[in-house]
Amino acid sequence: MQDEAGSPFRDREQRLEDRERKRETVLRAAVRMFNARGFHAASLDEVAASIGVSKPTIYHYLGNKEQVLLECFTRGLDALDRAVEKASAAPGTGLERLSAFLVRYAENNMSDFGRCVVRTGNDALSPEGAARFRAMKRKIDGHLRRLVAEAMADGSAAPADVKLTAFTLASAVNGSAFWFSADGALPARAVAEAIVAILTAGLAPRAVPQPLG
Amino acid sequence: MQDEAGSPFRDREQRLEDRERKRETVLRAAVRMFNARGFHAASLDEVAASIGVSKPTIYHYLGNKEQVLLECFTRGLDALDRAVEKASAAPGTGLERLSAFLVRYAENNMSDFGRCVVRTGNDALSPEGAARFRAMKRKIDGHLRRLVAEAMADGSAAPADVKLTAFTLASAVNGSAFWFSADGALPARAVAEAIVAILTAGLAPRAVPQPLG
Repeated sequence: MQDEAGSPFRDREQRLEDRERKRETVLRAAVRMFNARGFHAASLDEVAASIGVSKPTIYHYLGNKEQVLLECFTRGLDALDRAVEKASAAPGTGLERLSAFLVRYAENNMSDFGRCVVRTGNDALSPEGAARFRAMKRKIDGHLRRLVAEAMADGSAAPADVKLTAFTLASAVNGSAFWFSADGALPARAVAEAIVAILTAGLAPRAVPQPLG
Repeated sequence: MQDEAGSPFRDREQRLEDRERKRETVLRAAVRMFNARGFHAASLDEVAASIGVSKPTIYHYLGNKEQVLLECFTRGLDALDRAVEKASAAPGTGLERLSAFLVRYAENNMSDFGRCVVRTGNDALSPEGAARFRAMKRKIDGHLRRLVAEAMADGSAAPADVKLTAFTLASAVNGSAFWFSADGALPARAVAEAIVAILTAGLAPRAVPQPLG
């Protein structure tokens, strides 16, 4: 197949694909190193060594250490943007849409890029980088507050302070970025669903409806 | 009053008190600097300057930067130990005891020392320091799991996976260490109670009991 056309256009496409694949390999190696060591302790030398390339190769594809980190954040937060869009377009009650988003949010926090977003403090970044990071997170917070407000507005969620509720929900699903282990008994999706079930139903038992008649 | 006795024993007691007061002043200045700047960016020079003492004074009272941090952790986690004891001895259902602990846990996370515990990653510490920190946190996790298991055992909490429930609750109350602002509309205690109300009752509205007859 690869020699079928032999056209210079096909070659160009191929080169772009190669470049994208290499960039992706470098980025995935970096995010795993950041998650394993912490951003401060991780070095691009180690990242480069882990995939058998030189440090200039990393600069070439992604830039310096902070630029690599910001690209990891972009990936982690883009996934949440897509999750918001998907949840917002779904049928059902406001609480069903909010729950669907929270499950995806929690699941994303157990993935490499999502975990990196949650586990890296603002103090890892330069003032400019920290400002960009905060703006990205503020956007997700805005979406979450809207979903919470909609669920309260249609009565599917009990009335409460929207901001405080959104912060509590985000905190509960963010924690999994620290404690989830891919070697554990449950896959990320099942853990995400269990977390959201606690948040939706609450700790106290709910009255079981009595059969009529 | 201070010259009443003039005894050498009173002097000794006075000196110990002075020492304790100075140590406390240094420790509080340090924890605020760690919380404001992040542990990596904070320097003991700055801490010393903020209270008008020299860096050797800090070494004298508390030791090096990591020892200062571990003392902050000890304070933050000791407060949780006391909260567990108080909650465990209280009357009422298992869920009432669990909720009482969670309110204190959340409130502690909005205090200087509790905030420092939650916001500082293991990677800030040496391997030995990190091992001590993990052991301290494991102890609190053990207490939380016990309170969760007791609430499920007496039926006041709905049955669920104890470990996952404990992790979710801890995550939800830990978040406030990041987002709580002492300048906000609500004091820490009220925020803590609101968080725990969400966790206990859940997002979905509860059926209002109908009056009989």
